[in-house]
Amino acid sequence: MALLLIAPDRDTSELERRLRGLDPDLDLRRWPDVGRPGDVVFALAWKPPAEAFAGLPALRAVGSLGAGVDHLVDRPDLADDLALTRLAGPRLAADLAAYLVAMTVDWWKRLDEQRHCPDWRPLEPRSTPRIGLLGTGAMGRTAARAFRTLELDVAGWNRSGAACDSMATCSGADGLTRLAGRSDVLINVLPLTPATRGLLDGALFEQMPSDSLLVNVGRGEHLVEADLLDALERNRPGRAVLDVFGEEPLPADHPFRRHPRVVVTPHIAARTDAAEAARLALEQYRAIRRGDPPPGRVDRARGY
Amino acid sequence: MALLLIAPDRDTSELERRLRGLDPDLDLRRWPDVGRPGDVVFALAWKPPAEAFAGLPALRAVGSLGAGVDHLVDRPDLADDLALTRLAGPRLAADLAAYLVAMTVDWWKRLDEQRHCPDWRPLEPRSTPRIGLLGTGAMGRTAARAFRTLELDVAGWNRSGAACDSMATCSGADGLTRLAGRSDVLINVLPLTPATRGLLDGALFEQMPSDSLLVNVGRGEHLVEADLLDALERNRPGRAVLDVFGEEPLPADHPFRRHPRVVVTPHIAARTDAAEAARLALEQYRAIRRGDPPPGRVDRARGY
Repeated sequence: MALLLIAPDRDTSELERRLRGLDPDLDLRRWPDVGRPGDVVFALAWKPPAEAFAGLPALRAVGSLGAGVDHLVDRPDLADDLALTRLAGPRLAADLAAYLVAMTVDWWKRLDEQRHCPDWRPLEPRSTPRIGLLGTGAMGRTAARAFRTLELDVAGWNRSGAACDSMATCSGADGLTRLAGRSDVLINVLPLTPATRGLLDGALFEQMPSDSLLVNVGRGEHLVEADLLDALERNRPGRAVLDVFGEEPLPADHPFRRHPRVVVTPHIAARTDAAEAARLALEQYRAIRRGDPPPGRVDRARGY
Repeated sequence: MALLLIAPDRDTSELERRLRGLDPDLDLRRWPDVGRPGDVVFALAWKPPAEAFAGLPALRAVGSLGAGVDHLVDRPDLADDLALTRLAGPRLAADLAAYLVAMTVDWWKRLDEQRHCPDWRPLEPRSTPRIGLLGTGAMGRTAARAFRTLELDVAGWNRSGAACDSMATCSGADGLTRLAGRSDVLINVLPLTPATRGLLDGALFEQMPSDSLLVNVGRGEHLVEADLLDALERNRPGRAVLDVFGEEPLPADHPFRRHPRVVVTPHIAARTDAAEAARLALEQYRAIRRGDPPPGRVDRARGY
């Protein structure tokens, strides 16, 4: 049995090295060098080419090489009985939390305006912000814990209404309105699904407090870009920090590029840690070989 | 009995409002309107004028309006039998931790280089940093907890060798050398005392890893400025984030001002929270009135 990596756009050499370090006997292959297709029971993929899964008769599961599975879930070549997994461990969640805290504090304490202050004019920080997290999964919960260490008030919104230890939660359309209304910093860490596409829209922005901050590290498709540009004119939100975009790289002439109150980063908020990814991938592969449900499994109907 | 505020350089109106809100009967006075000097049993001070304490015959204790007491401890007008206190609660410690995390992540993930990225060239982050904290008191411990939420490795150094829950600790000259040698980010939160003045010097910088980060939020006098300028030439540390200076405001022609690898902020890392300061000050005042040892008391011989 073999594990196949399908990630033509991505350098996976460090991941491969880690996988071989953890299991020197691993039959690891890299697309397009598939070898005997009937050996492959698990494919770990990042934006795989069309039909990449079609010629693999023994395939039992497909794993995303990242936390998101939106690039896989609707693939026509993904047979209905295949399990779908993702690689999202505590290091990835902590890495994302670090970005979220840094960007929030930068705004809160006006650090961007005070670095290399040419004239030593200390600025009053903004009021201590209340944090709202759209998404209370592993990513959201780790971020909530980090913000709470800093004595900040955190609340979250999720689809299911499930309670969570790390923060007060709400759900539904009413809950979303309430959360936006009380969040000085509104952070999107939701997975992209038909239910969350376009969630960050004008109706939501209208609820946000004046001079608030919107942070999107989910997917570009969560955001209605034109609505945000309008909303920034009304100072609700007053600033946006965006790491993901509908089109990446973000085109050079995109209005976000030169907007004085939009901070653009090039999809770097969280980086896969090769050691963690290798450990999780191997756990998934071993479960799949045994015929057990793999850890990190995604509900394909739900989309996350 | 009365509480006297002595802070000619500081706007204390919000603190006064909070104190009166907590205790409408409080006999609160503001220097130089001392009223009958014999009423004053507690003076809360920030950089008080010379002899400000001398004419207060009933004075039992003096409190610093901030976390540091270095501006008070050596005052010739501070009688030997006066208790000395400071105002340092969890909000102040969390506020400082927020700054430290933001500046560390900014450097780690190269956020400063990637904000408004004109050409969408994602940069590899630096390696996951090991954090070293000089100082393991309330400030250091809160910062350690924040860094650990982000899955970062934290160790600390203190004078006494006391263990602490939040991180591994070491002490002494050997411990300092070891800590500097293993810290990609070395953060000074020590109080300023004769034992810590000039601790951040060339000998320490030589131990630091290449391309490391030094953060000073203690006092300017902890740092030997000329040694840091030399050390930056050797890339040990590779960058410094400085919030405190021997002379504040930092002179416009100071070499730190235009140094490409020094980030200067105008003493804004932690801001006293008026609500917390009022609560702590009132607890201290009430203990002093009763004749009890006040909370937040400082060991005057030790200097913190």
